[in-house]
Amino acid sequence: MSKYPSQLLKLIDTLRKLPGVGSKSAERFAFEMLKWPENQLTEMGNIIGHVAQQLSHCKECGCLIDNHTCCVFCDPKRIENGIICIIASPRDAFSIEETREYRGIYHVLGGVLSPMDGFGPKALKLDKLKERILALKLKEAIIALDSTVEGDATSLYLRQELESLDIQITRLAFGLPMGSALDYVDGGTLARAFIGRR
Amino acid sequence: MSKYPSQLLKLIDTLRKLPGVGSKSAERFAFEMLKWPENQLTEMGNIIGHVAQQLSHCKECGCLIDNHTCCVFCDPKRIENGIICIIASPRDAFSIEETREYRGIYHVLGGVLSPMDGFGPKALKLDKLKERILALKLKEAIIALDSTVEGDATSLYLRQELESLDIQITRLAFGLPMGSALDYVDGGTLARAFIGRR
Repeated sequence: MSKYPSQLLKLIDTLRKLPGVGSKSAERFAFEMLKWPENQLTEMGNIIGHVAQQLSHCKECGCLIDNHTCCVFCDPKRIENGIICIIASPRDAFSIEETREYRGIYHVLGGVLSPMDGFGPKALKLDKLKERILALKLKEAIIALDSTVEGDATSLYLRQELESLDIQITRLAFGLPMGSALDYVDGGTLARAFIGRR
Repeated sequence: MSKYPSQLLKLIDTLRKLPGVGSKSAERFAFEMLKWPENQLTEMGNIIGHVAQQLSHCKECGCLIDNHTCCVFCDPKRIENGIICIIASPRDAFSIEETREYRGIYHVLGGVLSPMDGFGPKALKLDKLKERILALKLKEAIIALDSTVEGDATSLYLRQELESLDIQITRLAFGLPMGSALDYVDGGTLARAFIGRR
């Protein structure tokens, strides 16, 4: 290991920061990259080095957008539908868009309640959400958070906070994933599928 | 997918070029990277963009070195040992170094014979290798190539070419990998372990 030239070590160390990439994978990436033409490396370096400056978050909903462009999710046609979908991270908006089931607007919380990580009720910035619900005269708020302990706690808290706003509050359904066999579904999921039967 | 901002798409596309990284992993990398502080992204971009300019191949042995430094593998003490290890790629030198079993010099062929990929006998540049063997008065050449059809063919060819040089030519041993159970070893490996018994 220590025999690697210092510049190669630097490359391996920086690649190891990628999620799920250990030293073996980083080495594999690095040696493969050294086979690339130089301009491909320069291009990749440029893209990675500048991506943060070229993306920003929509001031209204918090979704990811290219700098100096309007947020596609805050389109007036979507606002007309009167539905807002409350999500934890900007990425969730893209996952939901892929389903083509939803045509309303979004609101990014930036996380779920997690006191251990210092993410408390204040960090959710619910004032902005309430303001938007009232200003846009929305009819329904869909809570689309993970089905984890933190997601459940945050959903409960959101429900309490938004109750006074005269808006229908729903949460994504829990049940069997598509194509699953009953034998392989865990007890918790099965129980929630029973409760949510229709 | 098409809803991603263009700069994010660019980042995902460039990350997909890494070996073994598909679009799902590239998306995971990209969203994780967007959470990093901006200076970390800039640093990574700089390292990737400039690594090719900062590394070169030793003119003697072909190993990877930092620019403007001497090759650690061409150290006079190593030359004194009189052994040269013939490898296919610069990476192999690092793997062999890790074993701490070898203290001689290296010679990088740049590949193994593979007519389909246009890598023929001329691409091996054996003149340089022969020149080094004679000039450094070496006693042994160890062929350390993969145990594949191409590796075998290249080894055979090397042996023929170097025969006239009055040097002992050896090849890495084939046999059971460390810690392997006989039940799980394939027939080819077992046969070669029999032939190579000692």
